[in-house]
Amino acid sequence: MDVYEKALALHAAHQGKYEIKSKVSVANFDDLSLAYSPGVAAPCKAIAANPADVYTYTAKGNTIAVISDGSAVLGLGNIGPHAGLPVMEGKAILFKEFAGINAIPLCLNTQNVEEIIATCKFLEPSLGGINLEDISAPRCFEVERRLKAELNIPVFHDDQHGTAIVLLAALINANRLSGKPMASLKVVISGLGAAGVAIARILHQVGVTHITAIRSTGVVNNANCPNAEVQSLLDDGIILDSPHSSLAQAMQGADCFVGVSAPKMVTSEMVKSMNQKPYIFAMANPEPEILPELAHAAGAFVVGTGRSDYPNQINNVLAFPGIFKGALAMRTQISDAMKVAAATAIAGLISDDELKPEFIIPPAFDKRVVEVVSAAVINATS
Amino acid sequence: MDVYEKALALHAAHQGKYEIKSKVSVANFDDLSLAYSPGVAAPCKAIAANPADVYTYTAKGNTIAVISDGSAVLGLGNIGPHAGLPVMEGKAILFKEFAGINAIPLCLNTQNVEEIIATCKFLEPSLGGINLEDISAPRCFEVERRLKAELNIPVFHDDQHGTAIVLLAALINANRLSGKPMASLKVVISGLGAAGVAIARILHQVGVTHITAIRSTGVVNNANCPNAEVQSLLDDGIILDSPHSSLAQAMQGADCFVGVSAPKMVTSEMVKSMNQKPYIFAMANPEPEILPELAHAAGAFVVGTGRSDYPNQINNVLAFPGIFKGALAMRTQISDAMKVAAATAIAGLISDDELKPEFIIPPAFDKRVVEVVSAAVINATS
Repeated sequence: MDVYEKALALHAAHQGKYEIKSKVSVANFDDLSLAYSPGVAAPCKAIAANPADVYTYTAKGNTIAVISDGSAVLGLGNIGPHAGLPVMEGKAILFKEFAGINAIPLCLNTQNVEEIIATCKFLEPSLGGINLEDISAPRCFEVERRLKAELNIPVFHDDQHGTAIVLLAALINANRLSGKPMASLKVVISGLGAAGVAIARILHQVGVTHITAIRSTGVVNNANCPNAEVQSLLDDGIILDSPHSSLAQAMQGADCFVGVSAPKMVTSEMVKSMNQKPYIFAMANPEPEILPELAHAAGAFVVGTGRSDYPNQINNVLAFPGIFKGALAMRTQISDAMKVAAATAIAGLISDDELKPEFIIPPAFDKRVVEVVSAAVINATS
Repeated sequence: MDVYEKALALHAAHQGKYEIKSKVSVANFDDLSLAYSPGVAAPCKAIAANPADVYTYTAKGNTIAVISDGSAVLGLGNIGPHAGLPVMEGKAILFKEFAGINAIPLCLNTQNVEEIIATCKFLEPSLGGINLEDISAPRCFEVERRLKAELNIPVFHDDQHGTAIVLLAALINANRLSGKPMASLKVVISGLGAAGVAIARILHQVGVTHITAIRSTGVVNNANCPNAEVQSLLDDGIILDSPHSSLAQAMQGADCFVGVSAPKMVTSEMVKSMNQKPYIFAMANPEPEILPELAHAAGAFVVGTGRSDYPNQINNVLAFPGIFKGALAMRTQISDAMKVAAATAIAGLISDDELKPEFIIPPAFDKRVVEVVSAAVINATS
């Protein structure tokens, strides 16, 4: 059986990857009188008198929802909320296994922005945070922005920021190896969906000033801009109003390629045309924009992908568990400063002795990661 | 420490009574490749091709939400969604402990009927059913009716039907002892909120024709009717257009008092004025409409309350776990016939040898109950 057949069998065997369990005994009337009626009236009254006590007497403070509308699931596209549910269940169990966080997988039967926002608002009392997942761009930008402004619990769209944080961690360590400063980097981003936009923003925040973006319709500039979100990147000087007409042209002299787009976009010739010690982050899944062996043969200094079977996997699981662990501890929105702090903490786990082009990012199962990321988030809380 | 102090300490110690756990291992890359990317694409695609497969590959089929708006929590009233959360968490763990069902406690930040309905509809893809809880009357009636009509998963308002089913089970066994047929019973219901209305409906369904209802503003009739739901009970001949002017008058010659109202409504004199072998179901919590010792002293034949420290506890936990276990197995709405079948099954667990006025209903922790109730629901599915 291949991985897909095995996965199908695993899913059918379990009929769901998560379950809800009781943390208290309800085996007799004494138990029942404390966990339920009549004793439960005491925490109810305490919370009614002091709303912040909901964090003391309920699971709210350690419970998030993984919310999707099924509009952009993995690389499968708009397969809808039912078909997206296995992914959200998978994400939910990762939250528990990596950070001890209860995560409820909720796929919504609407793809209307206002209805998604309203549903999240109505669910807020039971939740300590919301992880948005697999919501297509550009709708995902408005959903997240509005929810961050209108809710009192942390909201995080992992497809945007998880990827951006881990990519930044890899880039920080690539610079440690090459000696290049952020301000000198010429970066090309291929793909301006959720991840590409967030990557552009976080790179700008750490001082990258020269970012060219390209998408399926060509190089992005004021004459070729797909939506208001990307226009704001242009207006704010986060990406360049590029004069280039092709990826090949944009790649000439670039220091770093960041792909969150499609397989086989990048050729050996393009890599050869880049500046010295070029970085290739080819994160299209499952097939990257260029295979690592090709990139290295063409002179790439550092190569990262989204895959676990190559070195330097850019895996969101390095970020989201610790991000939420820290944000839940502080009961705070997740700021840009926290994201940069998280990336810096992830990068810092690789010592100078360990650091080499084939090892710029900790592996997904490095148990130290969640702790340093949550500590970084907590320290970055103003 | 009394039960309330103990309960407060228990809740503070656990910070939530439930947790979400993984049913599959995610300890290494092989695990991850099956439970998450890339293997998870296989069940996603299968569901996209055949939507019914969501029951095969996800937790949907064994997962419900316990949904409240915090408007009628226990006897505490409209304490809001945050303060209601400890009750919903308690209910959720009872579903798991008694029936193995995953239940997600969700308290909604709205008390608007349309918004509650919309939220439930948007949550449907992840859920196999919805247990409505502690939503005040008369809004609860419209919420449940609309959701049953508009959703493809079972919806059940436990405050209505759980109480009604268990009360009916007790009444069936009281009749076994007294020899009175349903059609001969004169019943007085005190309280016409969620539970009272549902009790009137289920009693009518099993052939009780003489039901007088009374509420805080006096005996209910066409000149004293609080809302459209109760008016429909009058219009449909489910409750009488009563000529009485007081509870004392209505109780004269009655066979059965059903209290879902307030403490100390019923006096010894009222009990003495009832027909021979009168039944008293005094379910106000924590203090019943009349204390069992007083009722017995006044000649009550059978007495039931909501309390575990007296015989014959009318406890919803006898109904809701098995009701949902059966409905989830059949993926069907919960019909009136199923509710009657469930009550009959609960009553049938008491053998003729065991049956006596102090033992007309199984105790809450009788492990046979959930099985016979779910079997009854399954058998009643047309």
